[in-house]
Amino acid sequence: MEAEKTVTACVLIIGNEILSGRTQDVNLNHLAKGLNDAGVRLREARVIPDVAEIIVATVNEVRAKFDYVLTTGGIGPTHDDITNECVARAFGVPLVLDAEAKRILETRYRERGLELNEARLRMAHVPQGATLVLNPVSGAPGFRIGNVFVLAGVPQIMQAMFEGVKSSLKGGRPVLSRAISCGLAEGQLAKGLGEIQSRYPDIDIGSYPWYRRGSYGVSLVLRSPDDRRLDLASDEVAGLVRGLGGTPSEE
Amino acid sequence: MEAEKTVTACVLIIGNEILSGRTQDVNLNHLAKGLNDAGVRLREARVIPDVAEIIVATVNEVRAKFDYVLTTGGIGPTHDDITNECVARAFGVPLVLDAEAKRILETRYRERGLELNEARLRMAHVPQGATLVLNPVSGAPGFRIGNVFVLAGVPQIMQAMFEGVKSSLKGGRPVLSRAISCGLAEGQLAKGLGEIQSRYPDIDIGSYPWYRRGSYGVSLVLRSPDDRRLDLASDEVAGLVRGLGGTPSEE
Repeated sequence: MEAEKTVTACVLIIGNEILSGRTQDVNLNHLAKGLNDAGVRLREARVIPDVAEIIVATVNEVRAKFDYVLTTGGIGPTHDDITNECVARAFGVPLVLDAEAKRILETRYRERGLELNEARLRMAHVPQGATLVLNPVSGAPGFRIGNVFVLAGVPQIMQAMFEGVKSSLKGGRPVLSRAISCGLAEGQLAKGLGEIQSRYPDIDIGSYPWYRRGSYGVSLVLRSPDDRRLDLASDEVAGLVRGLGGTPSEE
Repeated sequence: MEAEKTVTACVLIIGNEILSGRTQDVNLNHLAKGLNDAGVRLREARVIPDVAEIIVATVNEVRAKFDYVLTTGGIGPTHDDITNECVARAFGVPLVLDAEAKRILETRYRERGLELNEARLRMAHVPQGATLVLNPVSGAPGFRIGNVFVLAGVPQIMQAMFEGVKSSLKGGRPVLSRAISCGLAEGQLAKGLGEIQSRYPDIDIGSYPWYRRGSYGVSLVLRSPDDRRLDLASDEVAGLVRGLGGTPSEE
């Protein structure tokens, strides 16, 4: 068996609108699933405000700590879109006009009969040394510099950008999962489940209670890149549920 | 005018299920709105895994940095519920059996004809010196220690706990907001909006593009505790929209 490297990531959600409660974030969940498929473990996510000092410091903290960092938000044309300049500052490089980005915007705006004004041209500025991340939805690109990917905040655009980025992520083996649901209470299962977890320290076993229309139960989720070990542990969990009088069902 | 103290908060979402993408978090948005109503500014949120060292270090980092910290998740009876012990470690105090919490659980389980076994009794253990946060939904309480509030992860339970907690938060003046929507593009508005922002540095002006069924537009959101200043700035934003041929509508 090869020694495995765990490839890690952190997502930075940049935007006052999430912290004020105005907007329900949905980007984290999309990225979490996509990173998982790419064999990258999302280890942390942070939501931070549109404040330059905080963005710069946070980018520098997390890019040193994780293999990949993905940011969402703050790459549009308005005064509160400061991600590009903050990432440049974090990397200690100037923000420069990217010729390809400019060309993309020129074409887009010409097609729509709109003017490529100064504000819009801001979106063609990226940190020196960055590679563009294309935006098939609305043109204005994101970018990659070092291990940091800068994506849009609007979910449709973010998702399209991430599709293009995914294949460039060098992940490890994807984490597989099994979910077993039953109508037992967590408190009944806890002891046996803890024992199974100790016998399978390589498997992450989570217990998630649910409540639906007056009935309750629990979903037991096992996660590991090792299919065979997952099968073994899942069988034990199913056996535990049966032994306590429950009916395990795969989710 | 009184000098105003800005009261800040950080939300810690503790749980592998959010980072794996299995679960879409909805607690952050609920807390963001509730904190705002209580005059507390949510300045950061983090999603971290069920890993003791990370939880302990993060709790200690953010409780020093913000006026309040609210955690969600990890307070159930299973092996992956380690928030209580981690918060005790962060505060350097032992985890102790709380007599009231035990009484609550005894009553709940007796009513339901269930046994208060060892795993369930774990939920009555809180850091020494903590005050209980009651859980009207399922009994097992959260707690407060210092400036840290430990709440459940299941949204219905978290929300009920937060209702009880809200009144004990000493916030500043609540942040009010105005939202003006129009069918213009961000790039048209950017220059004028930036100018208004410079004249109103005390107001947080955000620009959020939207796309719906082939049409697009932008929501301009102004936030401040000062109602009068908000009115003035909103009038200027509405004037800007009209000056560019748009029709401002209040959201």
